[in-house]
Amino acid sequence: MNQSTAPLPHGVDPAWLPSFALRPLGSRRIRIAGSGPLVDTVRGEVAAAVAEHGGVLVDSQEPVDLDLICGNGGTEAFTVTREDRTTTVHANGGPGLLYGFHHVVRRGEAAFDGTWTERVAPRQAIRMLDHWDNVDVHPVMGQVERGYAGGSLFYDNGVVRADLGRVAAYARLLASIGINRVGLNNVNVHRTEARLLTDLLPDVVRLAAVFRPQGIKVCLSVSFAAPVTLGGLATADPLDPEVRDWWARTTADVYAAIPDFAGYVVKADSEGQPGPFGYGRDHADGANALARALKPFGGTVFWRAFVYNHRQDWRDRTTDRARAAHDHFAPLDGRFDDNVVVQVKAGPIDFQTREPVSPVIAAMPSTRLAVELQVTQEYTGHQKHVCHLVPLWREMLSFRPWGEEEGTVADIAAGRASGPAGGVVAVSNAGDDPFWTGHPLAQANLYGFGRLAWDDRLTSAEVLDEWIGLTFADPDVRGPLHRLVDDSWRTYEKYTAPLGVGFMVRPGGHYGPDVDGYEYSPWGTYHFADRDGVGVDRTRATGTGFTGQFPPPWRNLYESPETCPDELLLFFHHVPYGHVLHSGTTVVQHIYDTHFDGREEVVRMAATWAELEGRVPASTFRRVTELLGEQLRSATEWRDQVNTYFHRKSGVPDARGRRIY
Amino acid sequence: MNQSTAPLPHGVDPAWLPSFALRPLGSRRIRIAGSGPLVDTVRGEVAAAVAEHGGVLVDSQEPVDLDLICGNGGTEAFTVTREDRTTTVHANGGPGLLYGFHHVVRRGEAAFDGTWTERVAPRQAIRMLDHWDNVDVHPVMGQVERGYAGGSLFYDNGVVRADLGRVAAYARLLASIGINRVGLNNVNVHRTEARLLTDLLPDVVRLAAVFRPQGIKVCLSVSFAAPVTLGGLATADPLDPEVRDWWARTTADVYAAIPDFAGYVVKADSEGQPGPFGYGRDHADGANALARALKPFGGTVFWRAFVYNHRQDWRDRTTDRARAAHDHFAPLDGRFDDNVVVQVKAGPIDFQTREPVSPVIAAMPSTRLAVELQVTQEYTGHQKHVCHLVPLWREMLSFRPWGEEEGTVADIAAGRASGPAGGVVAVSNAGDDPFWTGHPLAQANLYGFGRLAWDDRLTSAEVLDEWIGLTFADPDVRGPLHRLVDDSWRTYEKYTAPLGVGFMVRPGGHYGPDVDGYEYSPWGTYHFADRDGVGVDRTRATGTGFTGQFPPPWRNLYESPETCPDELLLFFHHVPYGHVLHSGTTVVQHIYDTHFDGREEVVRMAATWAELEGRVPASTFRRVTELLGEQLRSATEWRDQVNTYFHRKSGVPDARGRRIY
Repeated sequence: MNQSTAPLPHGVDPAWLPSFALRPLGSRRIRIAGSGPLVDTVRGEVAAAVAEHGGVLVDSQEPVDLDLICGNGGTEAFTVTREDRTTTVHANGGPGLLYGFHHVVRRGEAAFDGTWTERVAPRQAIRMLDHWDNVDVHPVMGQVERGYAGGSLFYDNGVVRADLGRVAAYARLLASIGINRVGLNNVNVHRTEARLLTDLLPDVVRLAAVFRPQGIKVCLSVSFAAPVTLGGLATADPLDPEVRDWWARTTADVYAAIPDFAGYVVKADSEGQPGPFGYGRDHADGANALARALKPFGGTVFWRAFVYNHRQDWRDRTTDRARAAHDHFAPLDGRFDDNVVVQVKAGPIDFQTREPVSPVIAAMPSTRLAVELQVTQEYTGHQKHVCHLVPLWREMLSFRPWGEEEGTVADIAAGRASGPAGGVVAVSNAGDDPFWTGHPLAQANLYGFGRLAWDDRLTSAEVLDEWIGLTFADPDVRGPLHRLVDDSWRTYEKYTAPLGVGFMVRPGGHYGPDVDGYEYSPWGTYHFADRDGVGVDRTRATGTGFTGQFPPPWRNLYESPETCPDELLLFFHHVPYGHVLHSGTTVVQHIYDTHFDGREEVVRMAATWAELEGRVPASTFRRVTELLGEQLRSATEWRDQVNTYFHRKSGVPDARGRRIY
Repeated sequence: MNQSTAPLPHGVDPAWLPSFALRPLGSRRIRIAGSGPLVDTVRGEVAAAVAEHGGVLVDSQEPVDLDLICGNGGTEAFTVTREDRTTTVHANGGPGLLYGFHHVVRRGEAAFDGTWTERVAPRQAIRMLDHWDNVDVHPVMGQVERGYAGGSLFYDNGVVRADLGRVAAYARLLASIGINRVGLNNVNVHRTEARLLTDLLPDVVRLAAVFRPQGIKVCLSVSFAAPVTLGGLATADPLDPEVRDWWARTTADVYAAIPDFAGYVVKADSEGQPGPFGYGRDHADGANALARALKPFGGTVFWRAFVYNHRQDWRDRTTDRARAAHDHFAPLDGRFDDNVVVQVKAGPIDFQTREPVSPVIAAMPSTRLAVELQVTQEYTGHQKHVCHLVPLWREMLSFRPWGEEEGTVADIAAGRASGPAGGVVAVSNAGDDPFWTGHPLAQANLYGFGRLAWDDRLTSAEVLDEWIGLTFADPDVRGPLHRLVDDSWRTYEKYTAPLGVGFMVRPGGHYGPDVDGYEYSPWGTYHFADRDGVGVDRTRATGTGFTGQFPPPWRNLYESPETCPDELLLFFHHVPYGHVLHSGTTVVQHIYDTHFDGREEVVRMAATWAELEGRVPASTFRRVTELLGEQLRSATEWRDQVNTYFHRKSGVPDARGRRIY
């Protein structure tokens, strides 16, 4: 049996590829034409499915229900045609056939009904998941930085796992949602992890071999200081010939071992990581130095734009972390080599529950850009809270930086709007937890990220609906699950930091409320609440000028509290507590209302989940029930801390007389 | 050469026993009469001193400068008589001779001048230092819990040190200030440390052997759950016969190995440590169970009264951590065996910069009480800030719970006021740092604790003066050092939490400001600041009723903001920002003034220290200079965070127009 369809270890959840989801396909007559490693993967899938569900793998030209036909090209697109009782997938190459196979699985019985044709192609060429996994257990961050799903799938306490069976199962899940790149290690590259590039390369070879049959290429996060720390050179200056030679030789060694290696991910001059600034160079110099080493082999540098002063003085109200990426990167547009992708966090701060879209995305028309999202729930409840992030990502990817007539963020990333194609990247939420993602319902975020990266036009409800149908056998779970999950991101937003102001989380861990936790810190994340008002003035007129980094119409819409969307008001403006929102309520009453309401919505979520007892697997039911208890406890704590904080500061009583402590 | 006078390892500071301090004695003719281990220690000291400084150790009856005469008793008192050009120390036993020797050293040249007699006896029988040292490095707390002076003197990464030479030098320093008990391990007893009582006992034997020649007996912190965790019993119920038998057998084994073992220190039902509550018993039941095991051997249980709910709900304003020790322990007065000492933190909360005296101290006339102080600077600047704590301890020990006509806290501890004698205990600030205490000037706190424990009537200035004279050879350092150190505790108080409200430190580590850091936490340490006022209402009339735990006159003085001392106002009262203090300024203006002033005082402290360049050892000068830089940075941060916090909340401008961010 092909490794990719090996049975899961005992107790591990099958996620969205359980046995019943393969039955519509596996119970039919299927033919496969073509050759190559990915065709072999599909053949293995089909063989396993028909063996389980009573179908037949047919070799001859007799009539079949499903005809999978693959050419010798390499594209990811495919066509599905249904006519004369046969569903035919035509793919130009292995990747297309693999994605076509999973497309048919997703369609289920509907794939074998009626007469129709569809041409399916990914909207983004690069659909990548980064893994902030450490080889060594980090003393503070543990095995997986910002990981909330147990240990790493790849590493365990200092070494790559001997048994990569679960990595193979993970790769299969990722292939089924169209992921085609993975970053294998934490962007904060510590000592042992740096060596994955050199003497630990054989471990990377093993991992690449597990991802390869699923059409997934691997990347490594590398340290910009590697020429010094690994190479023993006196400098890592990107313009130094010896440094360039070191990167060239080292990269050649990587490709000798992994010919389809995808490239490097680099976090440079960011939160203490080394970078080109240390040598008086800029980020184009830095990125291009690595790009030139990768160029001969077709590799790519994913260079993160997450550069800001993390030792800011809270007293200094002119420095604005939101401005930093644009200030650093926009002037470099046009200077990056064509195998550099600048990887930009979707928002200007850091994966908050609500942020505007980063203005960098509209500011670099001559640069390949990848939009970076966060599936792991660092600021959104640590996979203890149900917080369906697909609507957030959908909103950001659909945002039109130049207004209604122009392209979306997804168009820019895809090269359809301005400039060359980059892609979409996210930080994975998976680990060695039996449910993969800690919270079983957080699987929907991983699934949804892949699907949106493939096609940003899918609605959040459609994607969730696919996931529900694949994951749960009982059709009656669909309604309750939509009710519970659909708006859970907005619920989370309600009971946490209000109106786009962000943070208010406990420092370090980022779980649970601490309104002033970052208020006097060097991290540049402040709310400036005083007895009169709250929010950050980022206007051109009186604030940090951040609004000026947006093109029209947003530079003007954000500039005035009258036109700024309510949900971002405190991101852009410092307003009095009595300021009246477009919704008609004052800021402080909005804070009270949303915090009371958000917490009550969690009560209802728990009641909705309780309806599902007996309709979902018992282990899933138990885990989610338990976590909803924690979510309710935490939401109550959020409600009370935030309300008490603003009541103490503003002195304004709740108009509805509810209890504020 | 006696181990106790072995030379220090290279680079280790001699603290208050440098060579020059021994010269007045060591350069003279000395006779010693008597025998026994402590007399041998004194003989070793004298031999080393005369060898170094040119004196003579005389055996015959010829005239001498110093005659040390020891009987065969065991008391700690001694008499010093100066007449006919001979200074004679008469001691009834070894401890008295040892203390008399150090008394002469402290006196210096003055010990050999004039004609006089003094009778010297300790005012407390038990003068103890606890060490919160772990055998294993604790993942959060490190080798020494709340230690700011490097690693442990006793343990290094999982084992007792092979070379205990430095422990011997430490024991000698402690003997010179009259310490006669040490606790060898952290009161939070973790897994390995629990085993010091059983299979790791040989390590304790080694440590006891190093302390014994200095008249110091050792204690162990033990886990109340030891009968279960070490003994394999099903329960640790203190009334269970098997449990009592286990303690009896285990204790007998300890005394077989260490006949002069002092006893057990127990933190029970406190911050997660196991205790009698788990078995439906009270703290008298718990303490007496251990006391009965120790009784046949003359051992003592030091049972800490630090019991409170550390999982309090911040919303609940009726629960008051300050009340907890009195609520739990006062009703048990009279129920403790006579070899139980209830060890009470001097203040009702937790070693804050300013607290009232704990009302427990006046509430248990039939119980032996020890007052617990903290030399290690957990809440007072981590031995990075100069913060001379002797004035604080002097104030607390001199406090008269029943008013001017009655005894002091020190009297109660000594058994001179009400009830039987307990003692004085403190948590040490020493570690394997070359200066012993991290900050070289923090040695004055260690020295001062010992001297106050010996004689609480000594003034802070006298004690500091002794320390300066012993520590620094240049007489011109005296003036500047007094200026720098004398009021440093009040300076620290000025720039940190105001008017006795406490905390406002960063959670966990307790260094640096975080005004709301504990405000919404479960730890029971709140300031309740809102836009109108600040402070904790602990009155009987409208608050938690804590004032009622004090006897008159304090119950009445604390009850009213009109009579409550300014420095404790916010400990006892929630008042408006405009409340006028006895000093004539409003609360909020007092906050601004003290924070501006306190920070300026640190500037002056640094300038004063700079005067001492060349007058103190270069390594001391460098270390203190560096730390004063950090103290200034930190004091500036305190000033700005506290002032900004209260300015934002109150909206009141600084009357003097200084900059508040």
